[in-house]
Amino acid sequence: MEPTSLSDSRQCALGRLAGDVMAPSILLLLVEDEPLIIDVLEEALNDSGFEVVKASNGTKALKKIDADAAKFRAVITDIRLGSEPDGWAVARHAREIIPNMPVVYMSGDSTHEWASQGVPGSVMLAKPFAPAQLVTAVATLVTEADMHPPPPPAG
Amino acid sequence: MEPTSLSDSRQCALGRLAGDVMAPSILLLLVEDEPLIIDVLEEALNDSGFEVVKASNGTKALKKIDADAAKFRAVITDIRLGSEPDGWAVARHAREIIPNMPVVYMSGDSTHEWASQGVPGSVMLAKPFAPAQLVTAVATLVTEADMHPPPPPAG
Amino acid sequence: MEPTSLSDSRQCALGRLAGDVMAPSILLLLVEDEPLIIDVLEEALNDSGFEVVKASNGTKALKKIDADAAKFRAVITDIRLGSEPDGWAVARHAREIIPNMPVVYMSGDSTHEWASQGVPGSVMLAKPFAPAQLVTAVATLVTEADMHPPPPPAG
Amino acid sequence: MEPTSLSDSRQCALGRLAGDVMAPSILLLLVEDEPLIIDVLEEALNDSGFEVVKASNGTKALKKIDADAAKFRAVITDIRLGSEPDGWAVARHAREIIPNMPVVYMSGDSTHEWASQGVPGSVMLAKPFAPAQLVTAVATLVTEADMHPPPPPAG
Amino acid sequence: MEPTSLSDSRQCALGRLAGDVMAPSILLLLVEDEPLIIDVLEEALNDSGFEVVKASNGTKALKKIDADAAKFRAVITDIRLGSEPDGWAVARHAREIIPNMPVVYMSGDSTHEWASQGVPGSVMLAKPFAPAQLVTAVATLVTEADMHPPPPPAG
Amino acid sequence: MEPTSLSDSRQCALGRLAGDVMAPSILLLLVEDEPLIIDVLEEALNDSGFEVVKASNGTKALKKIDADAAKFRAVITDIRLGSEPDGWAVARHAREIIPNMPVVYMSGDSTHEWASQGVPGSVMLAKPFAPAQLVTAVATLVTEADMHPPPPPAG
Repeated sequence: MEPTSLSDSRQCALGRLAGDVMAPSILLLLVEDEPLIIDVLEEALNDSGFEVVKASNGTKALKKIDADAAKFRAVITDIRLGSEPDGWAVARHAREIIPNMPVVYMSGDSTHEWASQGVPGSVMLAKPFAPAQLVTAVATLVTEADMHPPPPPAG
Repeated sequence: MEPTSLSDSRQCALGRLAGDVMAPSILLLLVEDEPLIIDVLEEALNDSGFEVVKASNGTKALKKIDADAAKFRAVITDIRLGSEPDGWAVARHAREIIPNMPVVYMSGDSTHEWASQGVPGSVMLAKPFAPAQLVTAVATLVTEADMHPPPPPAG
Repeated sequence: MEPTSLSDSRQCALGRLAGDVMAPSILLLLVEDEPLIIDVLEEALNDSGFEVVKASNGTKALKKIDADAAKFRAVITDIRLGSEPDGWAVARHAREIIPNMPVVYMSGDSTHEWASQGVPGSVMLAKPFAPAQLVTAVATLVTEADMHPPPPPAG
Repeated sequence: MEPTSLSDSRQCALGRLAGDVMAPSILLLLVEDEPLIIDVLEEALNDSGFEVVKASNGTKALKKIDADAAKFRAVITDIRLGSEPDGWAVARHAREIIPNMPVVYMSGDSTHEWASQGVPGSVMLAKPFAPAQLVTAVATLVTEADMHPPPPPAG
Repeated sequence: MEPTSLSDSRQCALGRLAGDVMAPSILLLLVEDEPLIIDVLEEALNDSGFEVVKASNGTKALKKIDADAAKFRAVITDIRLGSEPDGWAVARHAREIIPNMPVVYMSGDSTHEWASQGVPGSVMLAKPFAPAQLVTAVATLVTEADMHPPPPPAG
Repeated sequence: MEPTSLSDSRQCALGRLAGDVMAPSILLLLVEDEPLIIDVLEEALNDSGFEVVKASNGTKALKKIDADAAKFRAVITDIRLGSEPDGWAVARHAREIIPNMPVVYMSGDSTHEWASQGVPGSVMLAKPFAPAQLVTAVATLVTEADMHPPPPPAG
């Protein structure tokens, strides 16, 4: 695809830099079982300079976290993922491995559970939300996490 | 108009979703009496995934608030609106109906009055400001308001 | 015991007011299985104008929450309580009933679990801590909760 | 009265210092029409090292502000003061003169109006509150105000 | 280059407004010695409505600050700039002249020095970061600085 | 001296606990060259449950930091200490060793330098201040630091 706008060419330039000067890229784990929505969210995040690893349910998400949690700069997760484990469990698991992992939840009907099921310092986006809300939340949390590095392992 | 960039196609995809999966849209009340400025601001907010209802003075803004305040996720208002009521009054009225309504003020020469006339938790943008300042402020406040829902009615 | 200092007489004056003008009192649920510690903490909280209902384990804490959660302005809980449920479960239960319930955890060896087991907006005090840390945390959280009232019930 | 505790002797030492080394004192304007309550609050603030100028209604409060607003490090005000002006007006007036004046409101039945009538960055204490809530709020706001000095005059 | 997207036309509209209605523009000082990176960052900031004055080392940055610090709404600086002075010194110098100047640091290998060398209220971006992190940080800090104007001169 | 008030007996109880159950104590480094002031501050901090190691100038402070920085939960320092190093240097040195060390500065005539000389996340208390401001600042910062543990060593 040809670059057709300033926005595209910027992405290309960043793409090159991501592979060269500024590598590695800024990787996010995005967990959502609705294909249409996950693609829209991925595009919004890509446009903002983030790269995304997608997981369509909780089991796949846990696997990716167990394989290499440290490569993700944030976890973005829907709450209801079709089957167990749900988004609450995914985020909790990520935090057990990386205690300062930024977490953004997205939900339509489970937002009222955030107060009891969410992890400290997380953001809950109530659907419907604007892409800018997701990008601003992720950008803010990733920056804050870098400024307050993780605690030493529990052991 | 044909989609000619990633950014456009994303908007289209979101438009479709807004009508289907993610409906209803994220609606903002934008109050500004300067036509050129209101259009530029609307475009910046649309690009970020927000939809805008425009009001060109305070009286029209109050009418839209009285008709259905709950449909707005935020109020963005200039201070000097040509005639009374001004932006301070518009925001106060919105907060009387929706106590946790996010409020963003914009002003060139009235910013010094914000400390005495603004509502708690509001943001004041001093003109000139970059579109990203407006988008970041709105995105942050809308997300926070969703995380801390409104109090029960005063009665 | 006779009041012998300004500090005592202030407590008395407040006591009277609590029964008269300013009633009801500001009640906190304090959950801690170590008798010596719970008494010291209670005294520090009393000196600051808070009244305390004590629970020496998680089961008793849940009972008091189920009986009347709304009467507590905050939950202060140790993590390890001798038997199940632990402090994480106590706080989660309180938040299920009162979504904006202020929560302060206290722990010596479980602080590393706060990132995955704590609730949003809670405070974790790492033992040993100064009484002023507890009082400042409780005072700040109670005031914030009053300024951002609870969401409507989930139903 | 003889000093009979560490707490008293500290107050005395500070009293001496306030007149000598650390003068002038930290003065707060406290506006409350209920005599019993105003005395209890004054004592709590004195115990914490603040000195208080009392005003029993809004008119007297405005007079003290107009006479020398800059000498007050914070304004603490009840909302309903028997007659007009109320606490909302008092705080707004103080902010017109000193834009970064810390403001703490106290109220039993007007807390729901804070979202529309309060000034930015203010704290609302819902009665009944513990003295530690007032002291923590005032201490935090005064320190923050000193770290972010006032804007130049509006003119 | 022809405008080919909504995003481009928005920039053009803003460009016109910047020269007319909303002038002057929102100017940032961007200090970075790596040409490829500085151009990518400039483009991301331009896309968000900010204009950039570039400096390729610390000496040039200090000169621009000394010439007219007040025209910059923020300083964005890499830490290692090839030669002295480094980014820590650039930011400190800007803050000596404009005490509430927003500061964003960017660094790959000096982030651990931020805790001892950074200025209060600054943001540290750990390379690699997404353009949205830079834009969100700058937008947030510029807005906050406008809401809390600078203290009077030290004299 | 006999305990003569609730406040005293609480201190005693805590003293015993500090040596037994809750040991070790919460130790602060307090750097101030004015003997009268340092004693008043120490007493206010003791009353709040903190213990203090005093240093009467910058050289002694650096020595105590170099001997065992990790034993201090916060550094509280005057700016002008009679001779070099000053309080800015003391805090910077502490942060080089313990990156998340809480820092509270106190100053009468150097507060305007905080914006350029202070470390991130520090608090500046402008003299004169109330003891409650110091206690609230220290309590808040120590709790926050415990919740966001230090980064791994720079190496």
